[in-house]
Amino acid sequence: LHRLSVRTTTNIQFINLTTEIQNIVTGSKITSGICVIFVPHTTAGITLNENADPAVLTDLKKEFLRLAPARADFEHNEGNSPAHLAAGLTGHSVTIIVEGGRLVLGTWQAIYLAEFDGPRLRDVLVKISPD
Amino acid sequence: LHRLSVRTTTNIQFINLTTEIQNIVTGSKITSGICVIFVPHTTAGITLNENADPAVLTDLKKEFLRLAPARADFEHNEGNSPAHLAAGLTGHSVTIIVEGGRLVLGTWQAIYLAEFDGPRLRDVLVKISPD
Amino acid sequence: LHRLSVRTTTNIQFINLTTEIQNIVTGSKITSGICVIFVPHTTAGITLNENADPAVLTDLKKEFLRLAPARADFEHNEGNSPAHLAAGLTGHSVTIIVEGGRLVLGTWQAIYLAEFDGPRLRDVLVKISPD
Repeated sequence: LHRLSVRTTTNIQFINLTTEIQNIVTGSKITSGICVIFVPHTTAGITLNENADPAVLTDLKKEFLRLAPARADFEHNEGNSPAHLAAGLTGHSVTIIVEGGRLVLGTWQAIYLAEFDGPRLRDVLVKISPD
Repeated sequence: LHRLSVRTTTNIQFINLTTEIQNIVTGSKITSGICVIFVPHTTAGITLNENADPAVLTDLKKEFLRLAPARADFEHNEGNSPAHLAAGLTGHSVTIIVEGGRLVLGTWQAIYLAEFDGPRLRDVLVKISPD
Repeated sequence: LHRLSVRTTTNIQFINLTTEIQNIVTGSKITSGICVIFVPHTTAGITLNENADPAVLTDLKKEFLRLAPARADFEHNEGNSPAHLAAGLTGHSVTIIVEGGRLVLGTWQAIYLAEFDGPRLRDVLVKISPD
């Protein structure tokens, strides 16, 4: 079980962890299996998306603010119910196949911590199960 | 393979299954591995969210009704297309790491069956794969 | 590691892959374990939903167009930011339990490739980890 510590710097943010997670896979010497990435928070999630044009992330941030807006009638008095919703929609675990010591990702895919209630210090857990 | 039977009591409901699932992990005597939780339904899902303030769940229910509303022009004549959408957005499987015989969850995380078309009797499947 | 190649024929489409994936499980001779299904794309996802009434899929397509609409102010100039959002909401991996050589699915569940930026040729990766 490996743990990454990630400092987010703004309210909504997608932080690319692909290199760090591939380094964990490489260090494990496991060549074939599955890699589970898990975010142990309720106002952040984990997701896969475009690794090339940063404008995709800009558009996603705008859309998450639209889909999970602030509402005057929310009952949770910390004021971060939109972040709880956005994290729930995004999800807290992804499972990625490992082959030849590499995460099997698509050409355009990166692994992102999805921060919805930053800035905060976040943990990301990585577990690699060999075949 | 373990199976929980859960009776939901209203249309939209989040039911905390963390204790039951931890009990299954404990009973399995597996100390290290991964735990897959799977909901074999199309109008309910499985999700992680806040375990402390129940107002978060109240806000989430309100928001799922907003994001997946009834529409007069839905073609599925059972009338539960919003539940199919909400379950799809929530997802049907989560994978949680097991270490030292414990589900590795965040301080504020609980595992919830997400009912979107209750009341019903639901199954939740739990499989623990040891290292 | 198994790879399905799937040709989608329209912009938004849900393609039922349950039979193909069960055939892969059967061919593997693995009777008990977990099956990870992974979509290595950023504008398509993988989801479970109703296998009986095709009207559910019609309603879902309509709803994804509403939840992830085109916007004049998107910055990503390929024009497919809605597909990136919809795929992120749907997710790129599902994990299904295998018992007795069968995917353990609910009566009404099917496994769908969720295309949000078609028509395209898509890959779906399938990995079965035995107990």
